[in-house]
Amino acid sequence: MDVEILTIGDEIMTGHTIDANSAFIAEKLTSAGFRIAYKSSTGDRVEQIEDAIKLALRRAPIVIATGGLGPTDDDVTKKAIVKVFKRNLIFHEDILEDIKRRYAVRGVDMPAINQNQALLPQGATFFPNKSGSAVGICLTEDGRVFVALPGVPFEMQQILVEEVIPYLLKLNQGRAIKVVKLRTTGIVESKLAEMIKPEIRLESGVRLAYLPHPGGVDLRVMAESDSSDEAEERAATLTRQLETIAGKFIFGRDEDTLEAVTGQLLNDNDKSLAVAESCTAGQLGALIATIPGSSAYFVGGVIAYSNQIKINHLRGNPEIIEKHGAVSEECAIAMAKGCRDATESDYALSITGTAGPDGGTEEKPVGTTYIGLASAHSEYAREFHFGTNRNVNRLRASYAALELLRRDILDIQ
Amino acid sequence: MDVEILTIGDEIMTGHTIDANSAFIAEKLTSAGFRIAYKSSTGDRVEQIEDAIKLALRRAPIVIATGGLGPTDDDVTKKAIVKVFKRNLIFHEDILEDIKRRYAVRGVDMPAINQNQALLPQGATFFPNKSGSAVGICLTEDGRVFVALPGVPFEMQQILVEEVIPYLLKLNQGRAIKVVKLRTTGIVESKLAEMIKPEIRLESGVRLAYLPHPGGVDLRVMAESDSSDEAEERAATLTRQLETIAGKFIFGRDEDTLEAVTGQLLNDNDKSLAVAESCTAGQLGALIATIPGSSAYFVGGVIAYSNQIKINHLRGNPEIIEKHGAVSEECAIAMAKGCRDATESDYALSITGTAGPDGGTEEKPVGTTYIGLASAHSEYAREFHFGTNRNVNRLRASYAALELLRRDILDIQ
Repeated sequence: MDVEILTIGDEIMTGHTIDANSAFIAEKLTSAGFRIAYKSSTGDRVEQIEDAIKLALRRAPIVIATGGLGPTDDDVTKKAIVKVFKRNLIFHEDILEDIKRRYAVRGVDMPAINQNQALLPQGATFFPNKSGSAVGICLTEDGRVFVALPGVPFEMQQILVEEVIPYLLKLNQGRAIKVVKLRTTGIVESKLAEMIKPEIRLESGVRLAYLPHPGGVDLRVMAESDSSDEAEERAATLTRQLETIAGKFIFGRDEDTLEAVTGQLLNDNDKSLAVAESCTAGQLGALIATIPGSSAYFVGGVIAYSNQIKINHLRGNPEIIEKHGAVSEECAIAMAKGCRDATESDYALSITGTAGPDGGTEEKPVGTTYIGLASAHSEYAREFHFGTNRNVNRLRASYAALELLRRDILDIQ
Repeated sequence: MDVEILTIGDEIMTGHTIDANSAFIAEKLTSAGFRIAYKSSTGDRVEQIEDAIKLALRRAPIVIATGGLGPTDDDVTKKAIVKVFKRNLIFHEDILEDIKRRYAVRGVDMPAINQNQALLPQGATFFPNKSGSAVGICLTEDGRVFVALPGVPFEMQQILVEEVIPYLLKLNQGRAIKVVKLRTTGIVESKLAEMIKPEIRLESGVRLAYLPHPGGVDLRVMAESDSSDEAEERAATLTRQLETIAGKFIFGRDEDTLEAVTGQLLNDNDKSLAVAESCTAGQLGALIATIPGSSAYFVGGVIAYSNQIKINHLRGNPEIIEKHGAVSEECAIAMAKGCRDATESDYALSITGTAGPDGGTEEKPVGTTYIGLASAHSEYAREFHFGTNRNVNRLRASYAALELLRRDILDIQ
């Protein structure tokens, strides 16, 4: 069944707040088998909201709005609802008692302004809010369902998951949808498509999307069916095919990240890791340390941004830099080896490259990067050619280093 | 002038991707004086996109779409554009050459699939894409402007900022709008408002917004008038008042960043900088090195994530950590001093803290962070209390360190 999500708030229209609410609602409803047909946003003016609700009700049988239900003057969603549905506001004693009780527990008198929160459009039912004063509002008319939820994320989330979705599922005779995201890295979108396309034929009701980002390309499998077993089965079939074709590039699924996956590999093997970074200047270390508990395997390392620090800390004796340059395979290997020795870690990763915008040469243009790895078994470096955007290059180099480590640990050629 | 932003992609409709693109576009266009009248999103089907573009063109004179311009089958935005504007696709040799060149630099043959990327609707002009194969597409008809940009964030961002906004500003014959953004750091939004509000009265046509983000709070001054001189004058008046009231917290304007401003100060004073990072694990160094040319003043430093590395590299003799703990004023000072000595730099910054989610104690709860500074004149550390979110804490610590340096160099108390 089709749904329109409408998010309301000036902070969304100015770009000051990223609209994470609509992504949350979309994800939960899609997983429950609904289809998000439209998403729209509008600012905090009664006429704008009124127009947006009317348009949404014309084009989708279910409309979920969020935002603008608070007690202050800039919250005007209820005014717009009253206009759209031509209803009066009715006072609900039970809602007010509930709000008063919540303030009493905190030992605070309820501000008078919260009286408004007990007024609902005539004929509306409501979904209770466990943590705030704004209840969810539900109106049905001409076979259409309109739901308005508060914009405070955790309040909206609780009401949606505990109240709204069970309510809609009772109404809906809908189709089941199964979504799987396979996360790849180390291969560009078009090469991945060239590998995959000739090898698969999509069943009806099954879709495959390529979603690129600086760390790699995600493959999203989406299977739809009348039965949830069949949707699961169809998604699993395509997932298995993709794993056979592109397995070595797939590092994880759904919410997995490369930094978490490599961290888990180090943890499982009881190994430690250090880094020696030139052009990335700490970005690889910072990425590794985004993972809570990374101190179990990550020891730190050196930011060897200047050549002097490379020479001092990395036992990359001056001849290497003089002979091959700081951006060279030889220097990357010396950096990794020196870092591993100095930190007594099991693995060391090094990065040295020309991030840009300046500093490129004909032989080694901007984007040329060497990533080194040293372990008890071997020392080597790989050459990469990224683009011309300095900070994208630095991010891509950090992910490429993690991928080099993942493949080394798993012995993937 | 009113704008509609239309984001295209199944991953947005299913909630798998949070639509940060539309927030970025909204923020940049709002700052440039445009008003975002509508925001909408649609999935990757030709008819849906066609309907969404038609609706957008009916209700806004400028429409910015993003997403669905990639080379693969699931990218169908161009098909929808062709239908809406009833144009044929025309081959652009120069676009193809440019894509081929980009692949050649990386030593890779261009996949045949990229041929599509050189096809544009008849009559369209294009905005070049420095990092990807999808150019921005621009069509004008009946006084309306339609722009389609790729959905890959950094590609979209570059084209929007460097190409689209300058183009739209030339077209805009509307009222003159002057926007000035004063960038503050080291003070929370409510404290800043308490300082400013009693001291100023806004003229008509002048607005002031407080825009908080992890690195600080921006003050956005927006002055509107029929004459551009008057708009400039009104903005300048309020800007001067704000500088008088909150000057010491203001590190820059508009596109200035704290990392660029501190870098410029180091450059101007011919000083060098090194870092010693514990909980941030390289994030401060990575932030400093986002600035092209930062190698003129930034030498690098140490990621002292484990205590052993702190002890080895930072001459922070073991007693300091045993006696005061790794998260302490004493350790931060020893780290900064040790780093400055080892790297022979003019300034060294150190960061040690409990980023969370675990590791907090009653005395030093999660978020407790010490930032140290060592120079030829002095060595000291400051205590900070950030929040409970690990990666927000690490980002805030990196900015706080740069601000400590800025105030030290400028001798701001």
